[in-house]
Amino acid sequence: MSDVNQLAQVSLAARLAEKICGFSKQQVTKKALQQAKTCFLDTVGVTLAGIPEDCTQILLRTPGVAEAPGSSLIFGTDLRTSALDAALINGTASHALDYDDFNSVFGGHHSVPLVAALLAVAEERKYSGEEVLLAYIVGVETELKLARAVHFHHYDKGWHPTATLGTFGAAAAVSYLIRLDQQKTTMALAIAASLASGIKANFGTMTKPLHVGQCGRNGLLAALLAENGFDANPSVLEHHQGFLNVFNGPGTFDAEKLFAGWAEPLEIESSDVGLKQFPCCGSTHPAIMMMLNLVREEGITADDVARIEVLPHGRRLRHTNTPHPKTPIEAKFSVQYVVARALLDGTVRLKDFEGDAHNEPAIRHLLQITQARPHPDMADDAAEQWGAEVVVELKDGRRLSRRVDNLVGRGGENPMSSDELWEKFEDCASRSLPREQIAPLFERLETLEAVADISQLTRLLQVSSLRGARKAEAPVSFASRTEQEAPETTWVP
Amino acid sequence: MSDVNQLAQVSLAARLAEKICGFSKQQVTKKALQQAKTCFLDTVGVTLAGIPEDCTQILLRTPGVAEAPGSSLIFGTDLRTSALDAALINGTASHALDYDDFNSVFGGHHSVPLVAALLAVAEERKYSGEEVLLAYIVGVETELKLARAVHFHHYDKGWHPTATLGTFGAAAAVSYLIRLDQQKTTMALAIAASLASGIKANFGTMTKPLHVGQCGRNGLLAALLAENGFDANPSVLEHHQGFLNVFNGPGTFDAEKLFAGWAEPLEIESSDVGLKQFPCCGSTHPAIMMMLNLVREEGITADDVARIEVLPHGRRLRHTNTPHPKTPIEAKFSVQYVVARALLDGTVRLKDFEGDAHNEPAIRHLLQITQARPHPDMADDAAEQWGAEVVVELKDGRRLSRRVDNLVGRGGENPMSSDELWEKFEDCASRSLPREQIAPLFERLETLEAVADISQLTRLLQVSSLRGARKAEAPVSFASRTEQEAPETTWVP
Repeated sequence: MSDVNQLAQVSLAARLAEKICGFSKQQVTKKALQQAKTCFLDTVGVTLAGIPEDCTQILLRTPGVAEAPGSSLIFGTDLRTSALDAALINGTASHALDYDDFNSVFGGHHSVPLVAALLAVAEERKYSGEEVLLAYIVGVETELKLARAVHFHHYDKGWHPTATLGTFGAAAAVSYLIRLDQQKTTMALAIAASLASGIKANFGTMTKPLHVGQCGRNGLLAALLAENGFDANPSVLEHHQGFLNVFNGPGTFDAEKLFAGWAEPLEIESSDVGLKQFPCCGSTHPAIMMMLNLVREEGITADDVARIEVLPHGRRLRHTNTPHPKTPIEAKFSVQYVVARALLDGTVRLKDFEGDAHNEPAIRHLLQITQARPHPDMADDAAEQWGAEVVVELKDGRRLSRRVDNLVGRGGENPMSSDELWEKFEDCASRSLPREQIAPLFERLETLEAVADISQLTRLLQVSSLRGARKAEAPVSFASRTEQEAPETTWVP
Repeated sequence: MSDVNQLAQVSLAARLAEKICGFSKQQVTKKALQQAKTCFLDTVGVTLAGIPEDCTQILLRTPGVAEAPGSSLIFGTDLRTSALDAALINGTASHALDYDDFNSVFGGHHSVPLVAALLAVAEERKYSGEEVLLAYIVGVETELKLARAVHFHHYDKGWHPTATLGTFGAAAAVSYLIRLDQQKTTMALAIAASLASGIKANFGTMTKPLHVGQCGRNGLLAALLAENGFDANPSVLEHHQGFLNVFNGPGTFDAEKLFAGWAEPLEIESSDVGLKQFPCCGSTHPAIMMMLNLVREEGITADDVARIEVLPHGRRLRHTNTPHPKTPIEAKFSVQYVVARALLDGTVRLKDFEGDAHNEPAIRHLLQITQARPHPDMADDAAEQWGAEVVVELKDGRRLSRRVDNLVGRGGENPMSSDELWEKFEDCASRSLPREQIAPLFERLETLEAVADISQLTRLLQVSSLRGARKAEAPVSFASRTEQEAPETTWVP
């Protein structure tokens, strides 16, 4: 048999497993490491913001959930449980506010399927920050290559790729972290194919973040089962009743895209990666940024302004044209409100979408002088659909404006600065952590590759009183550890 | 708005929930109750048989699985855990041997998604046998109506209906058992839509029984989340990116079949329900039955026989034509072996597919005088494809034969007798239980509707030493209960 024929007979999952197992630190560029750390840090932040949300809290109250003894922390509590359930709870929290990073090729959120599961396992088995980051990067690579093979048919059909493809991503990332060999990694991927689920009809409900918790837990379960010798069909991807044909359908995927350009460059380096800078609908972000530029560059304040005109791309305005929001959720989808808020406060933060924030007198006044309409120069069918212009007329008669042609999240050529990351992180983390833990946590995440034992990180995610969690009766087995100083970074790609 | 329009605006899940919540004992005929008890009893038996299997044991060894404290028993052990994990473990065990009952309209196994989940919850909340049986019947009704709406496209495409539709069945059954109202039952079904998974590419691996454990656990999780106020989209079935369109695809389902003939008659009464009488490939069963008829009716023994001819329908023979099986799994797919075994022992039992049973000298001798070929009178494309004839030539020169035209499992007009049920049950249960518990357990299951508290049943499923399970460190909270006599049956439909 020729080599070519041998290769053709190797299953897709086995070939994918070979790529995953063969991944090494040498493949990580400085840019990839930086972007991975930024995404990881941002995900930890939004997870802390999502812990008090109803979806997370109901899940935490469910009998049998997070009640197994274990060493994996539920963030923002002192409850420790199994890695499986920590992945479920923290994973759900990480997507509770839909404030986490995303990737336009993925058609979803690449970090949330991975981070909670990886930290849960790393804490149990005492892996280092570097090991966790490498596993995260290989998980992202797996998810994105799968997306390239199945999109956008997969997305358009109604699957939630964050969940369906994220299950494989989590299985790959955990398999790498716990050092499964190629055969067992193949099994983990093959088991994952039977656990993948999540449909878009449940968008807009608590079940959407549950998809994320489930996919992380299921990917982790697949890896743990494979580790112990559980089996599945290695041909599960290409089988006529396998993942590609059943989830997508014949003729709607390109399996070879699983391997094309693997890690060259790494998907995490891509400019398709975006961070959400503000805790409201992404379609409002270009307009917010333009107002913030006016505030920062021109020094204007709310008192200076006579009239505001907001001109987003038409496709961005349709679902965000809410001149007078009546609820926090309407405020999240009101481009008028968030632009007014950016002028008033010089920022847009989580508290702006809580309680009666949208009814503050100063905001109500600004909403009365704000108008929104589709930008006349930005065609509905243009290639770039994420533009916006903001025009302010000042009381002194001046007219100032800022315009951006396309701004899909932050990242790539337009990354968030460390200060901007900190501002978002602090806002998010303060929903679950005491203020004094937030800066040390942020700093440790900024140098995650230097953390020798992940418990040096998770210690800073713990809160000694049970803040909102009711599982006082659940077993808690937090082993106190001597604090060690993080060593100097030894890994400089 | 007219009533008709109002009705049209009610979502499918809400209409299904109305049917589920409105179900009552008055709808259960004597035949339905009998068939439900038979299926339930048989499922408990095959679960006990599946506990020692590798798939169950690996799952049980997985960190974080079955480690939560709780009151739900892992059958055949004294380990108690959360209802969620008991549903996972016992559910996986129940399908480990593929020896459980099935329904040809379902294209799968209707009992295994339900029984483990129901017993786990019933034990925790102290429900009665009658309540559990009613919940089981409504779970079967839900699964089967879903199957009528989506089949056989759903099956042919590659979904494993036992798992995908079983998730809804488990959600419905548990919602009924724990008395969720219509609104919460709707939510449970809608959450279930996002948890449903399982593809046929993993048939023939440990992941197939895992599908069953997962679907029971996920359906239960959906009900528990709904109970606590978790939400999902009530239009999740008919939504353009909902269950029907995403899993099946536009034009491949008939949603109104969800409601047509609901409980009139009950699906559990149907002659489509079948039990597997023997622990080997179903395609060999007609031939086994014919040999058993010869043994029982003619009084022949192996010593009397000079030659055996086995003539199954051609479609039954193709994958069971294994004249000299070399492994236990080959023996399960050898019509020659199982027919010889039926002659030698007057039965076919689990031990016949363990170790070196297929190499016993008496069997090897019989295999040498056994021939199999497709029955010349049974056309490949006939409507009935489950026929077989067995012909024996005796040493005294007589030639005897038995023939059946169609035998797809046992049930409907051809139910297993109580003796046959007992024979299978004892064989199965003895793999996990001490012999002295098996008869009392069988008797209690035969009058399950009279069991006041399900722990009267599960006490008989418990074994005091940890037989094969390694979770000695896991919390065990078995509350000893005073044995009560089962009351007289008060429910006679």
